[in-house]
Amino acid sequence: MRLSRYFLPVLKETPADAQIASHRLMLRAGMIRQQSAGIYSWLPLGYRVLRRIEQIVHEEQQRAGHIPLLMPTLQSADLWRESGRYDDYGEEMLRITDRHGRDMLYGPTNEEMITDIFRAHVTSYKDLPLTLYHIQWKFRDEIRPRFGVMRGREFLMKDGYNFDLTKEDALHAYNRHLVSYLRTYERMGLQAIPMRADSGPIGGDDTHEFLVLAETGESEVFYDSKVTDIRLGEREIDYDSHAECRAVMEEFTSLYARTDETHDEAVFNEIPEERRRSARGIEVGQIFYFGTKYSEPMGATVVTQSGERVPVHMGSHGIGVSRLLGALIEANHDENGIIWPEGVTPFHCGIVNLKQGDAEADAACEDLYKALKNKGLEPLYDDREERAGAKFATMDLIGLPWRITVGPRGLKNGVVELTSRRTGESEELPPETAVARVAEIYAGL
Amino acid sequence: MRLSRYFLPVLKETPADAQIASHRLMLRAGMIRQQSAGIYSWLPLGYRVLRRIEQIVHEEQQRAGHIPLLMPTLQSADLWRESGRYDDYGEEMLRITDRHGRDMLYGPTNEEMITDIFRAHVTSYKDLPLTLYHIQWKFRDEIRPRFGVMRGREFLMKDGYNFDLTKEDALHAYNRHLVSYLRTYERMGLQAIPMRADSGPIGGDDTHEFLVLAETGESEVFYDSKVTDIRLGEREIDYDSHAECRAVMEEFTSLYARTDETHDEAVFNEIPEERRRSARGIEVGQIFYFGTKYSEPMGATVVTQSGERVPVHMGSHGIGVSRLLGALIEANHDENGIIWPEGVTPFHCGIVNLKQGDAEADAACEDLYKALKNKGLEPLYDDREERAGAKFATMDLIGLPWRITVGPRGLKNGVVELTSRRTGESEELPPETAVARVAEIYAGL
Repeated sequence: MRLSRYFLPVLKETPADAQIASHRLMLRAGMIRQQSAGIYSWLPLGYRVLRRIEQIVHEEQQRAGHIPLLMPTLQSADLWRESGRYDDYGEEMLRITDRHGRDMLYGPTNEEMITDIFRAHVTSYKDLPLTLYHIQWKFRDEIRPRFGVMRGREFLMKDGYNFDLTKEDALHAYNRHLVSYLRTYERMGLQAIPMRADSGPIGGDDTHEFLVLAETGESEVFYDSKVTDIRLGEREIDYDSHAECRAVMEEFTSLYARTDETHDEAVFNEIPEERRRSARGIEVGQIFYFGTKYSEPMGATVVTQSGERVPVHMGSHGIGVSRLLGALIEANHDENGIIWPEGVTPFHCGIVNLKQGDAEADAACEDLYKALKNKGLEPLYDDREERAGAKFATMDLIGLPWRITVGPRGLKNGVVELTSRRTGESEELPPETAVARVAEIYAGL
Repeated sequence: MRLSRYFLPVLKETPADAQIASHRLMLRAGMIRQQSAGIYSWLPLGYRVLRRIEQIVHEEQQRAGHIPLLMPTLQSADLWRESGRYDDYGEEMLRITDRHGRDMLYGPTNEEMITDIFRAHVTSYKDLPLTLYHIQWKFRDEIRPRFGVMRGREFLMKDGYNFDLTKEDALHAYNRHLVSYLRTYERMGLQAIPMRADSGPIGGDDTHEFLVLAETGESEVFYDSKVTDIRLGEREIDYDSHAECRAVMEEFTSLYARTDETHDEAVFNEIPEERRRSARGIEVGQIFYFGTKYSEPMGATVVTQSGERVPVHMGSHGIGVSRLLGALIEANHDENGIIWPEGVTPFHCGIVNLKQGDAEADAACEDLYKALKNKGLEPLYDDREERAGAKFATMDLIGLPWRITVGPRGLKNGVVELTSRRTGESEELPPETAVARVAEIYAGL
């Protein structure tokens, strides 16, 4: 993309009402615009990151064998009356009346609807196990929306639902989700720690939240510092293997790590003192096993091999897709702006032309632009007639992990400059070496 | 995808309340499920086609230089009061009140919001031309939703908005959209004819609708039969060239082609009688030029080179993404089911194992499955323990354009059968030749 033809409305001033870094930086970098309280437009740069995160979530869900579909944003109130949640949900549910006077709502979650789809179409144990998921806009009418996309009212969420014949199978689905979530966050360059949590309005016996440690997090968390040393890494895990998924679950959840809702001071104090940590965290996902809580009242049953009709065991599993942008920025920024991890960056590499209009510099930038595109990478070429300082400031603000700087002086020596946004370190290289280096960094991501 | 692990709830019976073929077939093929009047879930097969159509629309919009962003589904009523449309829009607008008593609405279109984004961030002629678009769910509270996704209430639309300094530039944007829309529909294997249309509640001087001819279309259309002979085909068009885009626009719109709203019997009768056609059509897109209708009341202005402040010239341009599935099926089906054009098929090729459990047949199917995936294709392998007739019926119903049938008898002679869904013609080929043939068909799509 050439910046002269793009729409990147960066702000010079820091917006006064934005209290946390991610909110400020998303506004300043031209990623979002508030349209109403807690409701945002995703400007082109923000939209690119949102799509990238969505793509990683899709890939990891499908790798785990989960099947995508798409449920609508608006739901009938009748469905929620069946489960009993229509009256329970409170004022966070946005209730709507259509022109015929029918009660509707903007879905805050989809347990009822997915159970309705299941009961309409599945009747036999042979069709199990089944996990369906979607990535769709949700609405929760927060009384005081704040922190930008971190606590918005209209937000994008991945929610998935497993249907299993037995509790044991459903717990495997729970563990499988835990593994796939760990992989999802790691691909984004994010450490999200599974912590024992409270079940809230979804209900359920077993539940873990995934928390990213950050000073601005809204949850207080308590954990054994050893838990932050564990990584999934590159290991191969067979998502069909109960034992393999359970082993990962146990490895990641046996050390103490809890939110304040489930925190137990006595148990916490059994950890050696030097490993006890209390901190703040941002919730970016949650998994639940809730058994037959919805299948029983809503009649989601299957016939077993022995001819018996039984309600299915279910769970639901969510990733806060739009909120992840906030969490990623909270965990990756400095005083000059955002520092995107390579896995989610909106453009792979910036190109800064120090002397726009200089024939040699322009040609070198065009060549770099094409060479990067030929490698399957998407560069952002700052081809504006601006002074170098302004171009660097924009690149630092929007946080592309790599920048290639092209100027007449370097070109005389046959080199350009490759700079890491994270470390600030630069290296002078021939243009083709810089391209190869960037391609290598992104290979396999 | 292996069918045994997929969720494809095909129906044996034809749903009684579905009046048109596309609605019936989408229900029977397990593509959609109605959740409320005019509100559908997209089951996995339907979701795949929806995503494929979305992808083509994105690619062609970006090829034309248009920039994607994403606006929210809910909007503030105040924005619509500025343009004067809040009171004008009527009962099709779904009005919502949030917990603080603020008036909101579920966006039926986005002229106001995009104009708000523009005026907040763009001040200079130097930032023009600019075309922004998004693909987002919309809601129109139709009094009588019908025909499945063809006239739903919650529907997916691509809507794009151009901002230009002069009327001439804005008309180029109009022509550029016309060309990009023609290319979009052709890639989907669909002929959509631009017809002079009425501007409706969007307002505007110039507007064309794109109509797919189909008996079940809701619009009456009148046209010169020669108009159906024109194709864009493979020609290269420079989207920056005013002359090239205008030439395509003139070529496609100079022959008589109008909807009943603008039909003029006297002009129509000047066409030679044997070329006069009246038929029915499905609207799948519309382009508008409306000048300063929104920029003036909402203050979307730029400073020109000479320092003058002027309102920008705008247009809006829509493609009915979810409705296109209905139109595609209306134009591509027979008594046995859907016949997907290669450009939009949910899976590239079906594999039918005539004797599941037979070691040789199973191994041959597995090899085919892997070979197709290695070519970057997505096969759907019917690995269920079902009789051949049921497998064929399912494949015909869901409409994959190509099917490879594998059975012990053929394998003895070293062949499998490659069948075209459209023609019904079959050919016996060695498995590797069948794979190469299928790969060749999809190369470049």
